[in-house]
Amino acid sequence: MSRKPMVRPGGRSARVQEAVHTAVRELQEEVGRSELTVPLVATRAGVTPSTIYRRWGDLQELLSDVAVEHLRPDTPPPSRGHLSADLRGWAEQFIEEMSSPVGRTYIRDALLGHPDGDNAARCSAYAAEQIEVMLARAAERGEDAPDVETVLDRVVAPMMYRILFRPGDLTAPYAHRLVRELLEGPGTR
Amino acid sequence: MSRKPMVRPGGRSARVQEAVHTAVRELQEEVGRSELTVPLVATRAGVTPSTIYRRWGDLQELLSDVAVEHLRPDTPPPSRGHLSADLRGWAEQFIEEMSSPVGRTYIRDALLGHPDGDNAARCSAYAAEQIEVMLARAAERGEDAPDVETVLDRVVAPMMYRILFRPGDLTAPYAHRLVRELLEGPGTR
Repeated sequence: MSRKPMVRPGGRSARVQEAVHTAVRELQEEVGRSELTVPLVATRAGVTPSTIYRRWGDLQELLSDVAVEHLRPDTPPPSRGHLSADLRGWAEQFIEEMSSPVGRTYIRDALLGHPDGDNAARCSAYAAEQIEVMLARAAERGEDAPDVETVLDRVVAPMMYRILFRPGDLTAPYAHRLVRELLEGPGTR
Repeated sequence: MSRKPMVRPGGRSARVQEAVHTAVRELQEEVGRSELTVPLVATRAGVTPSTIYRRWGDLQELLSDVAVEHLRPDTPPPSRGHLSADLRGWAEQFIEEMSSPVGRTYIRDALLGHPDGDNAARCSAYAAEQIEVMLARAAERGEDAPDVETVLDRVVAPMMYRILFRPGDLTAPYAHRLVRELLEGPGTR
């Protein structure tokens, strides 16, 4: 299956992407996602269906792209003066958002993108970027800090694993415990 | 969406399930999964399409059920005389199987089951059962051992997170390092 790479901002491509994404978001709220079709999205966005097929391949790939955009953080994590407080606050918000019904739907859609595509990897890259901001602040303050891959393994991965495969203990105290065990454990450098 | 619970072994239900699962597996190899349809599977399995719709709801749910069956371990993990060796061997096999193209397809299909269903949770339950066997052996030998949820958080979750979201470092040494850090770290009880 040959697909065009995702467009970069600017120009007609970016305007089409914005119009199509907006159409998907609006129609999901208005008619529900099970009623979505490529022609319906195209009409709302003011483009032809073939424009959508050419760029995204199919509806599933489009929904995956829209979901990943939803999962992109708007702002860097707030600074709370210490790495443990930064990570605790971030992990608490992450588990709350991602384990909500809306969050689960976005994660699921993101994973439904083409297996050779990079939609799922973009989700992980967003989390890694947020973590890197907090680790860089810790380094500026002279605090000891683990590396980003260790934070992904010890904090993000367990939350995401439970959201996808083992729902139950998806609470702020669980997120806090993961951060505490990360910072007190042998992974800390 | 109302669906019948998955059947238990024995009787006509079990025979239908076995015939339908076998038909899916054969047809996936013969015609490829993109060509699969419920009528095609029904014909091969010798049942009516409505039997399949009634029990599974749709093709996606059927593929998810078949995938989870594939992910069910056939045998308990081999005993290697010590918990660290048992877990290392098991994690190494897990990462090798699950990160293969076939393994990824099964995980993806399992996650594609109905969001309110238990297909994804069954995958996690299989891993937990295997780990519990190893932990019980360790307890019999008088070894210190973490609990099963800690092993899931520290060994299974990072592997699965990277398989789904962050492909790259999916090697046996990575699996071994997760086990070493689990057993040497503060999570050990």
